[in-house]
Amino acid sequence: MAAQRVILEASEMPTHWYNVVADMPNPPAPPLGPDGKPVSPEMMMQIFSGPILEQEMSAERWIPIPEPVREIYALWRPTPLCRAERLEQALGTPAKIYYKNESVSPAGSHKPNSAVPQAYLNKMAGIKRMTTETGAGQWGSSLSFATQMFGIELRIYMVKVSYNQKPFRRSMMQTWGAEVLASPTDMTNAGRKALAADPNNPGSLGLAISEAVEEAAGRADTKYGLGSVLNHVLLHQTVIGLEAKKQFSKIGVYPDMIFAPCGGGSNFAGAAFPFLADKAAGKNVRLVAVEPTSCPTLTKGHYAYDFGDESGYTPMMLMYTLGHDFMPPSIHAGGLRYHGDSPLVSQLYKEGLVEAVAVPQVATFAAGVQFARAEGIIPAPESNHAIRAVIDEALRCKETGEPKVLFFNLSGHGHFDMASYDRYLAGQLEDYAYPEAAIEAALHRLPKVPA
Amino acid sequence: MAAQRVILEASEMPTHWYNVVADMPNPPAPPLGPDGKPVSPEMMMQIFSGPILEQEMSAERWIPIPEPVREIYALWRPTPLCRAERLEQALGTPAKIYYKNESVSPAGSHKPNSAVPQAYLNKMAGIKRMTTETGAGQWGSSLSFATQMFGIELRIYMVKVSYNQKPFRRSMMQTWGAEVLASPTDMTNAGRKALAADPNNPGSLGLAISEAVEEAAGRADTKYGLGSVLNHVLLHQTVIGLEAKKQFSKIGVYPDMIFAPCGGGSNFAGAAFPFLADKAAGKNVRLVAVEPTSCPTLTKGHYAYDFGDESGYTPMMLMYTLGHDFMPPSIHAGGLRYHGDSPLVSQLYKEGLVEAVAVPQVATFAAGVQFARAEGIIPAPESNHAIRAVIDEALRCKETGEPKVLFFNLSGHGHFDMASYDRYLAGQLEDYAYPEAAIEAALHRLPKVPA
Repeated sequence: MAAQRVILEASEMPTHWYNVVADMPNPPAPPLGPDGKPVSPEMMMQIFSGPILEQEMSAERWIPIPEPVREIYALWRPTPLCRAERLEQALGTPAKIYYKNESVSPAGSHKPNSAVPQAYLNKMAGIKRMTTETGAGQWGSSLSFATQMFGIELRIYMVKVSYNQKPFRRSMMQTWGAEVLASPTDMTNAGRKALAADPNNPGSLGLAISEAVEEAAGRADTKYGLGSVLNHVLLHQTVIGLEAKKQFSKIGVYPDMIFAPCGGGSNFAGAAFPFLADKAAGKNVRLVAVEPTSCPTLTKGHYAYDFGDESGYTPMMLMYTLGHDFMPPSIHAGGLRYHGDSPLVSQLYKEGLVEAVAVPQVATFAAGVQFARAEGIIPAPESNHAIRAVIDEALRCKETGEPKVLFFNLSGHGHFDMASYDRYLAGQLEDYAYPEAAIEAALHRLPKVPA
Repeated sequence: MAAQRVILEASEMPTHWYNVVADMPNPPAPPLGPDGKPVSPEMMMQIFSGPILEQEMSAERWIPIPEPVREIYALWRPTPLCRAERLEQALGTPAKIYYKNESVSPAGSHKPNSAVPQAYLNKMAGIKRMTTETGAGQWGSSLSFATQMFGIELRIYMVKVSYNQKPFRRSMMQTWGAEVLASPTDMTNAGRKALAADPNNPGSLGLAISEAVEEAAGRADTKYGLGSVLNHVLLHQTVIGLEAKKQFSKIGVYPDMIFAPCGGGSNFAGAAFPFLADKAAGKNVRLVAVEPTSCPTLTKGHYAYDFGDESGYTPMMLMYTLGHDFMPPSIHAGGLRYHGDSPLVSQLYKEGLVEAVAVPQVATFAAGVQFARAEGIIPAPESNHAIRAVIDEALRCKETGEPKVLFFNLSGHGHFDMASYDRYLAGQLEDYAYPEAAIEAALHRLPKVPA
């Protein structure tokens, strides 16, 4: 029988995360405050605890994974590396397709890889409460699980339209003991202002971020948790790629190309960055971030300083952006609708070390269904983006006869996204390419950085 | 770090299923036809293919798992054996709690363990199509996955009220390529008769079985697949307990008590029967089937010949039953609402080799939430029954100081059951003990077996 799954022992779980900053050709551009100067740790300490900030600003290559974090990781990690042989056969490709199955976590995605250390590090800093925001609920459910593991209270501002239309991720958060509020609420200035303007405001991710950040900034016992974009979140996710490297090494295989969905960047960074170390050392490996054509941040956006949130509460970060006031169409891959991208991913893309490709929505669901029918697992819509790009490459290999090794991050399952599959199967999904004119116009609304 | 998960290599997957018939003190009572005589293989061949029937009637102790079945099993098997240390700590018990995580299958439960060999054996017999019924959708989704793996067409009669109220399992079946019809349909005599009597008939599992069986009986290229109750289904599930025994053996532990949910019986049999072999050889191990108080088949039912379905289309089987016309209250553990129980489980219970306990619904959800908050995984409502019984036993151990080893089958996840969790968290779930008088009355409606 073919070895379809490469399993690591618990003792083989990585002991350190990999910090790509150590291998970047240039140091990362600093986040800037309203005065145009790099933000001070004191400013960041309003919403993040010390141990989190230390990781955020570190340039050390290896950062230890605390033992209590590894103990919680051990509930589902190391995750399997699987060969998708049945998909290869269905495609008739000489390419070999491997994937890392991150859907086996309690929350069903890679997100707990960062939620767990965030909860633990805050606990160590004496923090009793956390706040966060969530849209469709992947991050909110992951942080609910993680804070429950360490006895931290969690309040989640969930975009009201999702709160009402997608109750099951909310139930999941509540099962893990979190308090979930429909945002906008009347508990913050940002929420009250929005409700005063429109009592029926359906909420938005930007507004929910503002509420969660405002509450954390106003309470000494409370800190904020973010699920992507920032350096420390990307760092935590590298456990994916580090495990994958060990697994490939066990079977004497090395991937030619690595694919992962890219929204805020932590999914892609987690799978790809550990391989970038080899690339920096001369290894020929291509790292491909896959984004939706409806939110084409890397492939169509501007490389410029912009805010991380809609309201402009956060520091300005140098990144690819469609403009902080970008209103992404409501595609089903909620995790890929962010206007910007991680500054680290952006800089590496700018410097040519990583590639990016955009794929349209309907084709991503076609890829997800093809994968499910070959390999069993029904993937999350975000993961379908990587699968689409992998299938496209595998079909190119079929033309050329190249037996490339393709690796992708199966970042989550689609159990809470079946309504989207339903719409796809009923022929009701549509493609949407964000208009070039709107992207061009966003350039003129980017914040002015004081000299 | 504690070894919380015991993992087997792909090469350690069992090569044979265990047939408990070989170790039963008495041979199993035969199913009877309307004439009161044992049903002939010819009669059964109308709806089951030859290789399936051969397993159904076998008395061999070990039955080989075909290589193509093991290849599909390898997409998720061997499954982890996990120690629930955080739950032990939360309970403050000296007991050690282990569980087999069957929720990692593509369909999210143990059901594919039988769906895959059923699809394969039918394929080998030249069958092109299968039919089945499904209520909430666990079995239907598992057989959809399995038939897709072997290129067999599948038509599923899904109880209409579930079809309309629980669309996401339906989407899952369709994603795997199955045709799903809301039962009653106008495509069978049974369906047309029901619709003629009441055009708004909401359907029932018994009626859906009748439709699926009728279609299979009427087409030479089509066979029927059942998800529990019968000997061959229980046989396939023993891969769970066989793996668990290897895993316990690796860590030098042997369980004192084994718990599994019990509806039709395959869940319980799969986890427990492989240990019964040791019990038959003198080992002191207790096997506990856990059922709902609202459907107390083993603990309150009659041991008698009864039909397997509501309409009386099937042979009569000697089993514990609440009467084939039993209308179970609509508890949320849809998989445990069956009026009868596997003849093998029933006979072993009658003979004192297995035990049974009934637990009330609200307490099962309390157990499930406690488990989720300690161990991460949100369990299926069926699994919550086993968890309730394990927690009760662990709390008894706390009283007595006994460091018992308790093992249970975490048969599935609750991702498609969050509405039930929602109702539990909102305090809207109720307990229901099936009335003694109704059980007594059922005795008089059991079929008369011709002498």
